[in-house]
Amino acid sequence: MPESVRIVEVGPRDGLQNEKVAIPVTTRLELIKRLAAAGLRSIEVGSFVSPKRIPQMAGTDQVVRQLPMDDEVRYPVLVPNQQGMAAAIDAGAREIAIFASASETFSWKNINCSIAESIERFRPVVEMANANHVAVRGYVSCVLGCPYEGPVPIDAVVSVSQRLAQLGCYEISLGDTIGIGTPLQARTAVRAVAQDIGIDALAVHFHDTRGQAMANILACLEEGVAVVDSAVAGLGGCPYARGATGNVSTEDLLFMLHGMGVTTGVDLGSVIDAGLFISAELGRSTGSKVAQAMIA
Amino acid sequence: MPESVRIVEVGPRDGLQNEKVAIPVTTRLELIKRLAAAGLRSIEVGSFVSPKRIPQMAGTDQVVRQLPMDDEVRYPVLVPNQQGMAAAIDAGAREIAIFASASETFSWKNINCSIAESIERFRPVVEMANANHVAVRGYVSCVLGCPYEGPVPIDAVVSVSQRLAQLGCYEISLGDTIGIGTPLQARTAVRAVAQDIGIDALAVHFHDTRGQAMANILACLEEGVAVVDSAVAGLGGCPYARGATGNVSTEDLLFMLHGMGVTTGVDLGSVIDAGLFISAELGRSTGSKVAQAMIA
Repeated sequence: MPESVRIVEVGPRDGLQNEKVAIPVTTRLELIKRLAAAGLRSIEVGSFVSPKRIPQMAGTDQVVRQLPMDDEVRYPVLVPNQQGMAAAIDAGAREIAIFASASETFSWKNINCSIAESIERFRPVVEMANANHVAVRGYVSCVLGCPYEGPVPIDAVVSVSQRLAQLGCYEISLGDTIGIGTPLQARTAVRAVAQDIGIDALAVHFHDTRGQAMANILACLEEGVAVVDSAVAGLGGCPYARGATGNVSTEDLLFMLHGMGVTTGVDLGSVIDAGLFISAELGRSTGSKVAQAMIA
Repeated sequence: MPESVRIVEVGPRDGLQNEKVAIPVTTRLELIKRLAAAGLRSIEVGSFVSPKRIPQMAGTDQVVRQLPMDDEVRYPVLVPNQQGMAAAIDAGAREIAIFASASETFSWKNINCSIAESIERFRPVVEMANANHVAVRGYVSCVLGCPYEGPVPIDAVVSVSQRLAQLGCYEISLGDTIGIGTPLQARTAVRAVAQDIGIDALAVHFHDTRGQAMANILACLEEGVAVVDSAVAGLGGCPYARGATGNVSTEDLLFMLHGMGVTTGVDLGSVIDAGLFISAELGRSTGSKVAQAMIA
Protein backbone atom coordinates (compact mmCIF):
# COMPACT_ATOMS: atom_id res chain seq x y z
CA MET A 1 0.00 0.00 0.00
CA PRO A 2 1.53 3.35 -0.99
CA GLU A 3 2.00 6.02 1.70
CA SER A 4 0.58 8.68 -0.56
CA VAL A 5 -1.54 8.68 -3.69
CA ARG A 6 -1.80 11.29 -6.42
CA ILE A 7 -5.34 11.61 -7.72
CA VAL A 8 -5.84 12.58 -11.35
CA GLU A 9 -9.18 14.36 -11.36
CA VAL A 10 -10.89 13.60 -14.67
CA GLY A 11 -14.34 15.03 -13.89
CA PRO A 12 -14.06 18.16 -16.05
CA ARG A 13 -13.09 16.02 -19.08
CA ASP A 14 -13.96 12.31 -18.97
CA GLY A 15 -16.80 13.13 -16.61
CA LEU A 16 -18.51 16.10 -18.26
CA GLN A 17 -17.87 14.68 -21.74
CA ASN A 18 -20.24 11.83 -20.88
CA GLU A 19 -23.00 13.88 -19.27
CA LYS A 20 -26.12 14.76 -21.23
CA VAL A 21 -26.08 18.42 -20.25
CA ALA A 22 -23.35 20.57 -21.81
CA ILE A 23 -21.79 22.90 -19.26
CA PRO A 24 -20.59 26.38 -20.31
CA VAL A 25 -16.93 27.37 -20.17
CA THR A 26 -17.30 29.73 -17.21
CA THR A 27 -18.91 27.03 -15.09
CA ARG A 28 -16.25 24.49 -16.08
CA LEU A 29 -13.58 27.00 -15.08
CA GLU A 30 -15.29 27.55 -11.75
CA LEU A 31 -15.35 23.78 -11.15
CA ILE A 32 -11.67 23.44 -12.06
CA LYS A 33 -10.72 26.31 -9.74
CA ARG A 34 -12.63 24.71 -6.88
CA LEU A 35 -10.94 21.36 -7.50
CA ALA A 36 -7.50 22.99 -7.53
CA ALA A 37 -8.36 24.87 -4.34
CA ALA A 38 -9.30 21.54 -2.74
CA GLY A 39 -5.71 20.42 -3.25
CA LEU A 40 -5.97 18.36 -6.42
CA ARG A 41 -2.72 18.65 -8.36
CA SER A 42 -3.69 16.91 -11.63
CA ILE A 43 -6.93 18.02 -13.21
CA GLU A 44 -7.89 17.00 -16.74
CA VAL A 45 -9.64 20.08 -18.03
CA GLY A 46 -10.89 19.33 -21.53
CA SER A 47 -10.44 17.78 -24.92
CA PHE A 48 -9.33 19.28 -28.24
CA VAL A 49 -11.81 17.29 -30.28
CA SER A 50 -14.37 18.51 -32.78
CA PRO A 51 -17.20 20.28 -30.95
CA LYS A 52 -19.49 18.70 -33.53
CA ARG A 53 -18.51 15.27 -32.26
CA ILE A 54 -18.39 16.13 -28.56
CA PRO A 55 -20.26 19.38 -27.89
CA GLN A 56 -19.68 19.03 -24.14
CA MET A 57 -15.99 19.84 -24.71
CA ALA A 58 -16.56 22.91 -26.92
CA GLY A 59 -14.48 25.88 -25.79
CA THR A 60 -11.68 23.82 -24.28
CA ASP A 61 -9.26 26.39 -25.75
CA GLN A 62 -10.97 29.11 -23.71
CA VAL A 63 -10.85 26.94 -20.60
CA VAL A 64 -7.11 26.42 -21.00
CA ARG A 65 -6.44 30.10 -21.78
CA GLN A 66 -8.15 31.25 -18.60
CA LEU A 67 -6.52 28.76 -16.24
CA PRO A 68 -4.08 30.10 -13.67
CA MET A 69 -1.10 28.19 -15.11
CA ASP A 70 1.46 27.65 -12.40
CA ASP A 71 3.95 24.96 -11.56
CA GLU A 72 1.83 23.43 -8.80
CA VAL A 73 -1.09 22.05 -10.75
CA ARG A 74 -1.08 19.99 -13.93
CA TYR A 75 -3.99 20.61 -16.27
CA PRO A 76 -3.79 17.92 -18.96
CA VAL A 77 -6.06 18.08 -22.01
CA LEU A 78 -6.99 15.20 -24.27
CA VAL A 79 -5.56 15.52 -27.79
CA PRO A 80 -6.64 13.15 -30.59
CA ASN A 81 -4.39 14.36 -33.45
CA GLN A 82 -1.94 16.99 -34.73
CA GLN A 83 -4.67 19.52 -35.31
CA GLY A 84 -5.78 19.18 -31.71
CA MET A 85 -2.17 19.36 -30.59
CA ALA A 86 -1.62 22.62 -32.45
CA ALA A 87 -4.72 24.06 -30.79
CA ALA A 88 -3.57 22.83 -27.37
CA ILE A 89 -0.16 24.48 -27.79
CA ASP A 90 -1.77 27.64 -29.05
CA ALA A 91 -3.99 27.81 -25.98
CA GLY A 92 -0.99 27.33 -23.70
CA ALA A 93 -1.51 23.73 -22.54
CA ARG A 94 1.48 22.31 -20.66
CA GLU A 95 0.31 18.70 -20.54
CA ILE A 96 -1.67 16.54 -22.92
CA ALA A 97 -3.14 13.05 -22.82
CA ILE A 98 -3.11 10.66 -25.76
CA PHE A 99 -4.83 7.29 -25.97
CA ALA A 100 -4.88 3.86 -27.54
CA SER A 101 -7.01 0.80 -27.04
CA ALA A 102 -5.95 -2.68 -25.98
CA SER A 103 -8.73 -4.01 -28.25
CA GLU A 104 -8.43 -3.89 -32.05
CA THR A 105 -12.19 -3.80 -32.57
CA PHE A 106 -12.66 -0.98 -30.08
CA SER A 107 -9.88 0.96 -31.82
CA TRP A 108 -11.59 0.60 -35.19
CA LYS A 109 -15.05 1.47 -33.81
CA ASN A 110 -13.79 4.40 -31.77
CA ILE A 111 -11.20 6.06 -34.02
CA ASN A 112 -11.46 4.06 -37.24
CA CYS A 113 -7.95 2.66 -37.35
CA SER A 114 -5.90 -0.21 -35.95
CA ILE A 115 -4.05 0.01 -32.65
CA ALA A 116 -0.71 0.17 -34.48
CA GLU A 117 -1.93 2.98 -36.75
CA SER A 118 -3.33 4.92 -33.80
CA ILE A 119 0.05 4.86 -32.11
CA GLU A 120 1.84 5.94 -35.29
CA ARG A 121 -0.63 8.82 -35.64
CA PHE A 122 0.40 10.03 -32.20
CA ARG A 123 4.11 10.02 -33.05
CA PRO A 124 4.11 13.53 -34.61
CA VAL A 125 1.80 14.70 -31.81
CA VAL A 126 4.36 13.65 -29.22
CA GLU A 127 7.13 15.25 -31.28
CA MET A 128 5.20 18.53 -31.22
CA ALA A 129 4.71 18.11 -27.48
CA ASN A 130 8.42 17.50 -26.91
CA ALA A 131 9.40 20.48 -29.02
CA ASN A 132 7.11 22.67 -26.93
CA HIS A 133 8.00 21.22 -23.52
CA VAL A 134 4.52 19.79 -23.10
CA ALA A 135 4.24 16.65 -20.93
CA VAL A 136 2.41 13.63 -22.36
CA ARG A 137 0.24 11.18 -20.45
CA GLY A 138 -1.11 8.02 -22.08
CA TYR A 139 -4.41 6.19 -21.70
CA VAL A 140 -4.94 2.55 -22.55
CA SER A 141 -8.63 1.70 -22.90
CA CYS A 142 -10.41 -1.66 -22.58
CA VAL A 143 -7.68 -3.15 -20.38
CA LEU A 144 -10.12 -5.49 -18.58
CA GLY A 145 -12.58 -6.12 -21.39
CA CYS A 146 -14.00 -4.80 -24.64
CA PRO A 147 -17.67 -4.18 -25.44
CA TYR A 148 -17.15 -5.88 -28.84
CA GLU A 149 -14.49 -8.53 -28.23
CA GLY A 150 -15.20 -9.43 -24.63
CA PRO A 151 -12.04 -10.57 -22.82
CA VAL A 152 -8.83 -8.75 -23.80
CA PRO A 153 -5.53 -10.67 -23.67
CA ILE A 154 -3.07 -9.35 -21.10
CA ASP A 155 -0.35 -9.37 -23.77
CA ALA A 156 -2.32 -6.79 -25.74
CA VAL A 157 -2.52 -4.56 -22.68
CA VAL A 158 1.21 -4.89 -22.03
CA SER A 159 2.07 -4.30 -25.67
CA VAL A 160 0.09 -1.10 -26.13
CA SER A 161 1.24 0.24 -22.74
CA GLN A 162 4.83 -0.40 -23.77
CA ARG A 163 4.40 1.33 -27.10
CA LEU A 164 2.81 4.42 -25.50
CA ALA A 165 5.63 4.55 -22.94
CA GLN A 166 8.25 4.24 -25.68
CA LEU A 167 6.52 7.01 -27.59
CA GLY A 168 7.22 9.29 -24.64
CA CYS A 169 4.32 9.12 -22.16
CA TYR A 170 5.61 9.79 -18.64
CA GLU A 171 2.66 7.87 -17.21
CA ILE A 172 0.29 5.21 -18.52
CA SER A 173 -3.25 5.07 -17.18
CA LEU A 174 -4.86 1.65 -17.51
CA GLY A 175 -8.57 2.09 -18.10
CA ASP A 176 -11.42 -0.32 -17.51
CA THR A 177 -13.47 1.67 -19.99
CA ILE A 178 -16.67 -0.34 -19.66
CA GLY A 179 -16.36 -1.15 -15.95
CA ILE A 180 -16.38 -4.91 -16.44
CA GLY A 181 -13.28 -6.04 -14.51
CA THR A 182 -12.90 -7.52 -11.05
CA PRO A 183 -10.05 -7.18 -8.53
CA LEU A 184 -7.87 -10.19 -9.34
CA GLN A 185 -8.02 -9.31 -13.02
CA ALA A 186 -7.10 -5.69 -12.29
CA ARG A 187 -4.21 -6.85 -10.14
CA THR A 188 -2.95 -9.20 -12.84
CA ALA A 189 -3.04 -6.47 -15.49
CA VAL A 190 -1.21 -4.00 -13.27
CA ARG A 191 1.43 -6.55 -12.35
CA ALA A 192 2.07 -7.50 -15.98
CA VAL A 193 2.38 -3.90 -17.19
CA ALA A 194 4.46 -2.87 -14.17
CA GLN A 195 7.01 -5.58 -14.96
CA ASP A 196 7.47 -3.87 -18.27
CA ILE A 197 7.31 -0.14 -17.64
CA GLY A 198 7.61 0.04 -13.84
CA ILE A 199 4.93 0.57 -11.21
CA ASP A 200 5.86 4.26 -10.79
CA ALA A 201 4.81 4.97 -14.38
CA LEU A 202 1.37 3.42 -13.88
CA ALA A 203 -2.03 4.86 -13.05
CA VAL A 204 -5.43 3.15 -12.96
CA HIS A 205 -8.73 4.41 -14.27
CA PHE A 206 -11.94 2.66 -13.27
CA HIS A 207 -15.57 3.16 -14.13
CA ASP A 208 -18.10 1.93 -11.59
CA THR A 209 -20.52 0.49 -14.12
CA ARG A 210 -20.85 -2.77 -12.21
CA GLY A 211 -19.91 -1.55 -8.75
CA GLN A 212 -16.37 -2.93 -8.90
CA ALA A 213 -14.32 0.28 -9.06
CA MET A 214 -13.46 0.70 -5.39
CA ALA A 215 -12.49 -2.95 -4.91
CA ASN A 216 -10.43 -2.85 -8.10
CA ILE A 217 -8.60 0.25 -6.87
CA LEU A 218 -7.88 -1.42 -3.54
CA ALA A 219 -6.37 -4.41 -5.33
CA CYS A 220 -4.19 -2.10 -7.45
CA LEU A 221 -3.07 -0.08 -4.42
CA GLU A 222 -1.98 -3.37 -2.87
CA GLU A 223 0.18 -3.87 -5.98
CA GLY A 224 1.82 -0.53 -5.32
CA VAL A 225 -0.06 1.71 -7.75
CA ALA A 226 0.12 5.27 -6.40
CA VAL A 227 -1.75 7.25 -9.08
CA VAL A 228 -5.53 6.88 -9.43
CA ASP A 229 -7.91 8.61 -11.85
CA SER A 230 -11.33 9.59 -10.50
CA ALA A 231 -14.09 12.12 -11.11
CA VAL A 232 -15.73 14.47 -8.64
CA ALA A 233 -19.39 13.47 -8.02
CA GLY A 234 -18.77 10.31 -10.06
CA LEU A 235 -19.35 12.39 -13.20
CA GLY A 236 -19.66 10.65 -16.53
CA GLY A 237 -23.03 8.99 -16.68
CA CYS A 238 -25.88 9.83 -14.42
CA PRO A 239 -25.99 7.16 -11.69
CA TYR A 240 -29.77 7.35 -11.64
CA ALA A 241 -30.21 6.58 -15.29
CA ARG A 242 -30.11 3.26 -17.05
CA GLY A 243 -26.66 2.04 -17.98
CA ALA A 244 -24.82 4.39 -15.69
CA THR A 245 -21.16 4.31 -16.57
CA GLY A 246 -19.74 7.04 -14.38
CA ASN A 247 -16.16 7.26 -13.22
CA VAL A 248 -15.35 6.22 -9.70
CA SER A 249 -16.16 9.14 -7.41
CA THR A 250 -13.23 11.22 -6.15
CA GLU A 251 -15.02 11.74 -2.84
CA ASP A 252 -15.53 8.00 -2.19
CA LEU A 253 -11.93 7.30 -3.22
CA LEU A 254 -10.63 10.01 -0.87
CA PHE A 255 -12.72 8.58 1.97
CA MET A 256 -11.13 5.16 1.45
CA LEU A 257 -7.58 6.48 1.09
CA HIS A 258 -7.73 8.80 4.10
CA GLY A 259 -9.44 6.07 6.15
CA MET A 260 -6.46 3.82 5.42
CA GLY A 261 -3.98 6.52 6.37
CA VAL A 262 -2.91 7.16 2.79
CA THR A 263 -2.21 10.86 2.24
CA THR A 264 -3.43 12.74 -0.84
CA GLY A 265 -3.04 16.43 0.01
CA VAL A 266 -6.71 16.85 -0.91
CA ASP A 267 -9.44 18.22 1.35
CA LEU A 268 -12.45 15.91 1.15
CA GLY A 269 -14.97 18.51 2.31
CA SER A 270 -13.92 20.92 -0.43
CA VAL A 271 -14.23 18.21 -3.08
CA ILE A 272 -17.71 17.34 -1.78
CA ASP A 273 -18.67 21.01 -2.14
CA ALA A 274 -17.27 21.13 -5.69
CA GLY A 275 -19.21 17.95 -6.53
CA LEU A 276 -22.48 19.35 -5.20
CA PHE A 277 -21.85 22.55 -7.17
CA ILE A 278 -21.39 20.77 -10.51
CA SER A 279 -24.20 18.28 -9.80
CA ALA A 280 -26.57 21.20 -9.29
CA GLU A 281 -25.38 22.74 -12.58
CA LEU A 282 -26.07 19.42 -14.30
CA GLY A 283 -29.46 19.15 -12.64
CA ARG A 284 -28.73 15.74 -11.18
CA SER A 285 -27.89 14.20 -7.82
CA THR A 286 -24.29 13.54 -6.94
CA GLY A 287 -22.91 10.12 -7.83
CA SER A 288 -20.77 10.14 -4.69
CA LYS A 289 -22.11 8.06 -1.83
CA VAL A 290 -19.92 9.96 0.64
CA ALA A 291 -21.49 13.22 -0.53
CA GLN A 292 -24.98 11.70 -0.32
CA ALA A 293 -24.30 10.60 3.26
CA MET A 294 -23.00 14.07 4.16
CA ILE A 295 -26.09 15.92 2.94
CA ALA A 296 -28.56 13.45 4.44
CA MET B 1 -8.92 -15.74 -0.91
CA PRO B 2 -11.48 -18.48 -0.19
CA GLU B 3 -12.35 -20.91 -3.01
CA SER B 4 -16.05 -20.59 -2.28
CA VAL B 5 -18.19 -18.10 -0.41
CA ARG B 6 -21.56 -18.58 1.24
CA ILE B 7 -23.77 -15.53 0.81
CA VAL B 8 -26.27 -14.74 3.53
CA GLU B 9 -29.05 -12.92 1.72
CA VAL B 10 -30.49 -10.33 4.09
CA GLY B 11 -32.70 -8.44 1.62
CA PRO B 12 -36.06 -9.77 2.87
CA ARG B 13 -35.18 -8.68 6.44
CA ASP B 14 -32.43 -6.07 6.89
CA GLY B 15 -33.26 -4.78 3.42
CA LEU B 16 -37.05 -4.52 3.44
CA GLN B 17 -37.09 -3.44 7.09
CA ASN B 18 -35.33 -0.23 6.04
CA GLU B 19 -37.43 0.58 2.99
CA LYS B 20 -40.20 3.16 3.20
CA VAL B 21 -42.77 0.98 1.47
CA ALA B 22 -44.10 -2.00 3.44
CA ILE B 23 -44.33 -5.11 1.29
CA PRO B 24 -47.15 -7.65 1.86
CA VAL B 25 -46.44 -11.20 3.04
CA THR B 26 -47.29 -12.86 -0.29
CA THR B 27 -44.83 -10.64 -2.15
CA ARG B 28 -42.12 -11.25 0.44
CA LEU B 29 -42.70 -15.00 0.07
CA GLU B 30 -42.44 -14.71 -3.69
CA LEU B 31 -39.12 -12.84 -3.34
CA ILE B 32 -37.76 -15.45 -0.92
CA LYS B 33 -38.76 -18.30 -3.24
CA ARG B 34 -37.03 -16.60 -6.16
CA LEU B 35 -33.89 -16.08 -4.10
CA ALA B 36 -33.85 -19.73 -3.03
CA ALA B 37 -34.41 -20.80 -6.64
CA ALA B 38 -31.38 -18.69 -7.62
CA GLY B 39 -29.26 -20.91 -5.40
CA LEU B 40 -29.01 -18.84 -2.23
CA ARG B 41 -28.75 -21.18 0.75
CA SER B 42 -29.07 -18.68 3.63
CA ILE B 43 -31.93 -16.21 3.39
CA GLU B 44 -32.94 -14.04 6.31
CA VAL B 45 -36.70 -13.89 5.98
CA GLY B 46 -38.03 -11.64 8.70
CA SER B 47 -38.01 -10.36 12.24
CA PHE B 48 -40.17 -11.23 15.25
CA VAL B 49 -40.37 -7.67 16.48
CA SER B 50 -43.41 -5.58 17.31
CA PRO B 51 -45.22 -4.63 14.09
CA LYS B 52 -45.91 -1.30 15.78
CA ARG B 53 -42.20 -0.63 15.92
CA ILE B 54 -41.31 -2.10 12.52
CA PRO B 55 -44.43 -2.42 10.36
CA GLN B 56 -42.35 -3.64 7.39
CA MET B 57 -41.80 -6.93 9.24
CA ALA B 58 -45.45 -7.53 10.20
CA GLY B 59 -46.59 -11.05 9.35
CA THR B 60 -43.16 -12.64 9.69
CA ASP B 61 -44.92 -15.58 11.36
CA GLN B 62 -46.98 -16.11 8.20
CA VAL B 63 -43.86 -15.84 6.06
CA VAL B 64 -42.12 -18.55 8.08
CA ARG B 65 -45.18 -20.81 8.16
CA GLN B 66 -45.47 -20.78 4.38
CA LEU B 67 -41.81 -21.41 3.61
CA PRO B 68 -40.87 -24.74 2.05
CA MET B 69 -38.73 -25.84 5.02
CA ASP B 70 -36.14 -28.29 3.84
CA ASP B 71 -32.59 -29.12 4.81
CA GLU B 72 -31.05 -27.29 1.88
CA VAL B 73 -31.89 -23.70 2.70
CA ARG B 74 -31.52 -21.85 5.97
CA TYR B 75 -34.17 -19.23 6.67
CA PRO B 76 -33.00 -17.31 9.76
CA VAL B 77 -35.30 -14.81 11.44
CA LEU B 78 -34.26 -11.98 13.74
CA VAL B 79 -35.42 -12.46 17.32
CA PRO B 80 -35.09 -9.65 19.90
CA ASN B 81 -36.35 -11.41 23.06
CA GLN B 82 -38.08 -14.48 24.59
CA GLN B 83 -41.48 -13.43 23.33
CA GLY B 84 -40.14 -13.24 19.79
CA MET B 85 -38.38 -16.56 20.27
CA ALA B 86 -41.61 -18.23 21.34
CA ALA B 87 -43.32 -16.87 18.24
CA ALA B 88 -40.44 -18.00 16.02
CA ILE B 89 -40.58 -21.54 17.40
CA ASP B 90 -44.35 -21.57 17.09
CA ALA B 91 -44.09 -20.60 13.41
CA GLY B 92 -41.55 -23.36 12.78
CA ALA B 93 -38.31 -21.34 12.42
CA ARG B 94 -35.20 -23.50 12.37
CA GLU B 95 -32.67 -20.70 12.66
CA ILE B 96 -32.67 -17.37 14.44
CA ALA B 97 -30.36 -14.39 14.61
CA ILE B 98 -29.62 -12.43 17.75
CA PHE B 99 -27.64 -9.21 18.05
CA ALA B 100 -25.52 -7.01 20.23
CA SER B 101 -23.64 -3.79 19.66
CA ALA B 102 -19.93 -3.09 20.02
CA SER B 103 -20.90 0.42 21.17
CA GLU B 104 -22.47 1.05 24.60
CA THR B 105 -24.25 4.21 23.45
CA PHE B 106 -25.70 2.52 20.40
CA SER B 107 -26.91 -0.34 22.59
CA TRP B 108 -28.71 2.07 24.92
CA LYS B 109 -30.22 4.11 22.07
CA ASN B 110 -31.25 1.04 20.09
CA ILE B 111 -32.52 -1.38 22.74
CA ASN B 112 -32.33 0.66 25.95
CA CYS B 113 -29.85 -1.48 27.85
CA SER B 114 -26.10 -1.99 28.19
CA ILE B 115 -24.17 -4.42 26.00
CA ALA B 116 -23.74 -6.79 28.94
CA GLU B 117 -27.46 -6.70 29.73
CA SER B 118 -28.36 -7.29 26.09
CA ILE B 119 -26.29 -10.44 26.06
CA GLU B 120 -27.79 -11.69 29.33
CA ARG B 121 -31.27 -11.10 27.91
CA PHE B 122 -30.41 -13.38 25.02
CA ARG B 123 -29.29 -16.22 27.33
CA PRO B 124 -32.81 -17.66 27.84
CA VAL B 125 -33.52 -17.08 24.14
CA VAL B 126 -30.55 -19.25 23.18
CA GLU B 127 -31.63 -21.85 25.76
CA MET B 128 -35.05 -22.00 24.11
CA ALA B 129 -33.33 -22.31 20.72
CA ASN B 130 -31.11 -25.13 21.92
CA ALA B 131 -34.06 -26.99 23.46
CA ASN B 132 -35.88 -26.76 20.12
CA HIS B 133 -32.91 -27.56 17.86
CA VAL B 134 -32.95 -24.07 16.40
CA ALA B 135 -29.60 -22.75 15.15
CA VAL B 136 -28.44 -19.33 16.36
CA ARG B 137 -26.51 -16.75 14.39
CA GLY B 138 -25.13 -13.60 16.02
CA TYR B 139 -24.79 -10.03 14.75
CA VAL B 140 -22.39 -7.49 16.16
CA SER B 141 -23.29 -3.96 15.14
CA CYS B 142 -21.13 -0.82 14.93
CA VAL B 143 -17.91 -2.80 14.52
CA LEU B 144 -16.21 -0.04 12.48
CA GLY B 145 -17.85 2.98 14.06
CA CYS B 146 -20.85 4.26 15.98
CA PRO B 147 -23.15 7.14 15.03
CA TYR B 148 -22.97 8.41 18.62
CA GLU B 149 -19.49 7.48 19.86
CA GLY B 150 -17.51 7.66 16.62
CA PRO B 151 -14.59 5.22 16.64
CA VAL B 152 -15.23 1.89 18.39
CA PRO B 153 -12.29 0.16 20.12
CA ILE B 154 -11.30 -3.16 18.57
CA ASP B 155 -11.34 -4.72 22.05
CA ALA B 156 -15.04 -3.99 22.33
CA VAL B 157 -15.67 -5.74 19.01
CA VAL B 158 -13.65 -8.77 20.09
CA SER B 159 -15.31 -8.89 23.50
CA VAL B 160 -18.91 -8.83 22.29
CA SER B 161 -18.13 -11.30 19.48
CA GLN B 162 -16.59 -13.64 22.02
CA ARG B 163 -19.59 -13.39 24.34
CA LEU B 164 -22.06 -14.09 21.53
CA ALA B 165 -19.99 -17.08 20.44
CA GLN B 166 -19.83 -18.39 24.00
CA LEU B 167 -23.58 -17.97 24.27
CA GLY B 168 -23.96 -20.45 21.43
CA CYS B 169 -23.92 -18.61 18.09
CA TYR B 170 -22.50 -20.85 15.38
CA GLU B 171 -21.49 -17.80 13.35
CA ILE B 172 -20.82 -14.15 14.17
CA SER B 173 -21.54 -11.51 11.55
CA LEU B 174 -19.52 -8.33 12.01
CA GLY B 175 -21.60 -5.37 10.87
CA ASP B 176 -20.51 -1.93 9.75
CA THR B 177 -23.98 -0.68 10.58
CA ILE B 178 -23.47 2.90 9.45
CA GLY B 179 -21.15 2.15 6.53
CA ILE B 180 -18.28 4.24 7.86
CA GLY B 181 -15.32 1.83 7.74
CA THR B 182 -12.51 1.45 5.22
CA PRO B 183 -10.60 -1.66 4.13
CA LEU B 184 -7.62 -1.69 6.49
CA GLN B 185 -9.94 -1.13 9.42
CA ALA B 186 -12.23 -3.94 8.28
CA ARG B 187 -9.23 -6.23 7.90
CA THR B 188 -7.94 -5.37 11.35
CA ALA B 189 -11.30 -6.07 12.98
CA VAL B 190 -11.68 -9.40 11.19
CA ARG B 191 -8.16 -10.45 12.11
CA ALA B 192 -8.65 -9.59 15.78
CA VAL B 193 -11.97 -11.42 16.10
CA ALA B 194 -10.73 -14.41 14.07
CA GLN B 195 -7.83 -14.87 16.48
CA ASP B 196 -10.42 -15.35 19.16
CA ILE B 197 -13.29 -17.32 17.62
CA GLY B 198 -11.72 -18.57 14.39
CA ILE B 199 -12.12 -17.30 10.84
CA ASP B 200 -14.58 -20.09 9.97
CA ALA B 201 -17.10 -18.74 12.48
CA LEU B 202 -16.98 -15.24 11.00
CA ALA B 203 -19.17 -13.41 8.50
CA VAL B 204 -19.06 -9.77 7.42
CA HIS B 205 -21.96 -7.40 6.89
CA PHE B 206 -21.38 -4.11 5.09
CA HIS B 207 -23.58 -1.19 4.20
CA ASP B 208 -22.53 0.89 1.22
CA THR B 209 -23.37 4.25 2.79
CA ARG B 210 -20.04 5.76 1.77
CA GLY B 211 -19.23 3.50 -1.18
CA GLN B 212 -16.76 1.37 0.77
CA ALA B 213 -18.62 -1.95 0.99
CA MET B 214 -17.10 -3.78 -1.97
CA ALA B 215 -13.53 -2.77 -1.10
CA ASN B 216 -14.13 -3.73 2.54
CA ILE B 217 -15.42 -7.14 1.47
CA LEU B 218 -12.38 -7.68 -0.74
CA ALA B 219 -10.09 -6.91 2.20
CA CYS B 220 -12.00 -9.38 4.39
CA LEU B 221 -11.93 -12.10 1.71
CA GLU B 222 -8.16 -11.66 1.62
CA GLU B 223 -8.18 -12.38 5.36
CA GLY B 224 -10.01 -15.65 4.66
CA VAL B 225 -13.59 -14.68 5.45
CA ALA B 226 -15.88 -17.00 3.47
CA VAL B 227 -19.35 -15.84 4.54
CA VAL B 228 -20.69 -12.49 3.37
CA ASP B 229 -24.05 -10.84 4.08
CA SER B 230 -25.66 -8.90 1.23
CA ALA B 231 -29.07 -7.80 0.00
CA VAL B 232 -30.60 -8.29 -3.42
CA ALA B 233 -30.98 -4.94 -5.25
CA GLY B 234 -29.01 -3.30 -2.44
CA LEU B 235 -32.24 -3.14 -0.45
CA GLY B 236 -32.32 -1.15 2.76
CA GLY B 237 -32.37 2.50 1.88
CA CYS B 238 -33.24 3.86 -1.49
CA PRO B 239 -29.98 4.66 -3.28
CA TYR B 240 -31.60 7.65 -4.93
CA ALA B 241 -32.67 9.30 -1.73
CA ARG B 242 -30.66 11.35 0.68
CA GLY B 243 -28.67 9.40 3.23
CA ALA B 244 -28.92 6.12 1.42
CA THR B 245 -27.78 3.37 3.74
CA GLY B 246 -28.50 0.25 1.74
CA ASN B 247 -26.78 -3.07 2.17
CA VAL B 248 -24.15 -4.05 -0.32
CA SER B 249 -25.90 -5.48 -3.38
CA THR B 250 -25.92 -9.26 -3.77
CA GLU B 251 -25.67 -8.87 -7.54
CA ASP B 252 -22.55 -6.67 -7.41
CA LEU B 253 -20.99 -9.00 -4.84
CA LEU B 254 -21.70 -12.05 -7.02
CA PHE B 255 -20.17 -10.29 -10.03
CA MET B 256 -16.97 -9.67 -8.07
CA LEU B 257 -16.79 -13.18 -6.59
CA HIS B 258 -17.50 -14.99 -9.85
CA GLY B 259 -15.09 -12.67 -11.69
CA MET B 260 -12.38 -13.76 -9.27
CA GLY B 261 -13.19 -17.44 -9.73
CA VAL B 262 -14.79 -17.76 -6.28
CA THR B 263 -17.76 -20.13 -6.43
CA THR B 264 -21.06 -19.36 -4.70
CA GLY B 265 -23.57 -21.80 -6.17
CA VAL B 266 -25.76 -18.82 -7.00
CA ASP B 267 -27.01 -17.83 -10.46
CA LEU B 268 -26.41 -14.12 -10.98
CA GLY B 269 -29.05 -13.71 -13.67
CA SER B 270 -31.76 -15.13 -11.42
CA VAL B 271 -30.77 -12.82 -8.57
CA ILE B 272 -30.89 -9.84 -10.96
CA ASP B 273 -34.42 -10.88 -11.93
CA ALA B 274 -35.44 -11.22 -8.28
CA GLY B 275 -33.97 -7.78 -7.58
CA LEU B 276 -35.84 -6.15 -10.44
CA PHE B 277 -39.03 -7.85 -9.23
CA ILE B 278 -38.80 -6.48 -5.68
CA SER B 279 -37.57 -3.05 -6.88
CA ALA B 280 -40.69 -2.77 -9.02
CA GLU B 281 -42.85 -3.73 -6.02
CA LEU B 282 -41.12 -1.03 -3.98
CA GLY B 283 -41.55 1.49 -6.80
CA ARG B 284 -37.86 2.29 -6.93
CA SER B 285 -34.87 1.61 -9.14
CA THR B 286 -32.55 -1.21 -8.25
CA GLY B 287 -29.57 -0.35 -6.07
CA SER B 288 -27.43 -2.90 -7.92
CA LYS B 289 -25.07 -1.41 -10.48
CA VAL B 290 -24.72 -4.79 -12.20
CA ALA B 291 -28.49 -4.91 -12.63
CA GLN B 292 -28.55 -1.32 -13.91
CA ALA B 293 -25.88 -2.18 -16.48
CA MET B 294 -27.83 -5.27 -17.57
CA ILE B 295 -31.07 -3.41 -18.23
CA ALA B 296 -29.39 -0.48 -19.96
